[in-house]
Amino acid sequence: MKNLAWINGEVCDLHEANVPVEDRGFLFGDGIYEVIKIYNGKPFYLEPHLKRLQRSASAINIEIPYSNEELNEHIAGLINQSECDHGYIYMQVTRGCAPRGHLFPGGIRPTVLIYVRAFESVPSRELTEPADCITLPDERWMNCYIKSVNLLPNVLAFQKAHEAGASEAILYRPDGTVTEGTRTNIFALIDGVVRTHPETRYILPGITRGIVLDILKQISVPVSEEAFKVSELQEASEVWTASTGLEIVPVKTIDGKPLKEISPGPVCKRLAGEFWQVVDAECYGGKQ
Amino acid sequence: MKNLAWINGEVCDLHEANVPVEDRGFLFGDGIYEVIKIYNGKPFYLEPHLKRLQRSASAINIEIPYSNEELNEHIAGLINQSECDHGYIYMQVTRGCAPRGHLFPGGIRPTVLIYVRAFESVPSRELTEPADCITLPDERWMNCYIKSVNLLPNVLAFQKAHEAGASEAILYRPDGTVTEGTRTNIFALIDGVVRTHPETRYILPGITRGIVLDILKQISVPVSEEAFKVSELQEASEVWTASTGLEIVPVKTIDGKPLKEISPGPVCKRLAGEFWQVVDAECYGGKQ
Repeated sequence: MKNLAWINGEVCDLHEANVPVEDRGFLFGDGIYEVIKIYNGKPFYLEPHLKRLQRSASAINIEIPYSNEELNEHIAGLINQSECDHGYIYMQVTRGCAPRGHLFPGGIRPTVLIYVRAFESVPSRELTEPADCITLPDERWMNCYIKSVNLLPNVLAFQKAHEAGASEAILYRPDGTVTEGTRTNIFALIDGVVRTHPETRYILPGITRGIVLDILKQISVPVSEEAFKVSELQEASEVWTASTGLEIVPVKTIDGKPLKEISPGPVCKRLAGEFWQVVDAECYGGKQ
Repeated sequence: MKNLAWINGEVCDLHEANVPVEDRGFLFGDGIYEVIKIYNGKPFYLEPHLKRLQRSASAINIEIPYSNEELNEHIAGLINQSECDHGYIYMQVTRGCAPRGHLFPGGIRPTVLIYVRAFESVPSRELTEPADCITLPDERWMNCYIKSVNLLPNVLAFQKAHEAGASEAILYRPDGTVTEGTRTNIFALIDGVVRTHPETRYILPGITRGIVLDILKQISVPVSEEAFKVSELQEASEVWTASTGLEIVPVKTIDGKPLKEISPGPVCKRLAGEFWQVVDAECYGGKQ
């Protein structure tokens, strides 16, 4: 297994991959990204990720100089060359390289980076130990639906959670409305209905969030894309996070206070089982 | 004249200066920066810029591995080597390079970049043609006092201004309070008092802003760090922007509506004259 990078058509070892300091990704965070999981040598839900990449790019007026078909091909080639069974693909597109200035420069070509990082072991399908979370004010900008690399607020909130002994920070707006985690979407079972923040400008429409919503509908669990407050979250009977990187993670305490029911609860457990069936269907030819 | 870059002690041509793609500046915008003007081969107000760089770094828990005395020396060396008379120094410090993860990585060294870009001609001391500005909602994060490279909201707002035929976007919070421009601080003469947003988390405390405040006090123009609304701005008799890059720029229209008085007004003109005396004192040995 080798961690390889592809930049605008050139392949090299990841640790030798560079960008010019005048790349606008470095100077302005003027770029967008995606992280795609690789299970069994196959990218999981690649098409929705590529669609979202195109949506993010178009929201900040970057025209990606490759079609999704071409990106698909380059990703498949890179996974193949890197001999990666389990790991992830990281993709970043920036506006390109030019002398520093806020204005979009004319006549430059976007920087397209794709790299593969392998995991050292096969990811476990067991639900992880239920997590401790803290809540923090959502201090991010107003357009979190764009998956941009302006991630400093996420980094700082995640670090704060870690230093408080928690594994995720759940963010809320000034009126107490929970938006999402620093790198996850948040689901809460409240009065028998699973709720999560609707797709507005204040959250990133997570790919795993979409899979969770689909599964819940299929297994006839009542679900509603209706936001909730921190106070409701603290009274929820089940809470979990959903993300590409960590799949489904049950939550057991919020701000040090245990949830009312033992975690993981029955809905979360069932959901996680169904989630891995989706992975099997896509990446293991239907069986595992 | 050569545009040179200095990265962690190594000097090279700016267009050959690279950073690894796993630098957190590129992946997360996890870094801070400064822009310092060079007049007559000398960096202007370098000390306040270096102090602010240290403040920004400390606000996001980056420890810059060089003292201000060392940075001073490297900057002087680079200006000297590049033979730059007029131009600017750009400095950026990121948390460093590590496999991608939100958590601060342990045991890595921050990336320190300094580069010099020369101007092709001596900057004019004449006040520029008064500018057209538009107003836009301030969609940035809540900690704009940190001079981070998470500049996508600034880039997008500046671009929007440009596409509307304006040269700056003046940003306002949901209650209509003007914070600052996308890359400038905003001053308005309202009922005989010069006003500008106070130093809170919502604005960057500009170095030129500080110089302007000092000058106004010295020449006994009434001045108050008291925020104002967009509606007050539109009724101001004088408005100007202040920034390292563009110094003092008078404003003549806001959202297409001319100010009540002809621009540049007497306060702005006097201020600009005094500003260049500060430059002379620091960079031309007192005379020009």
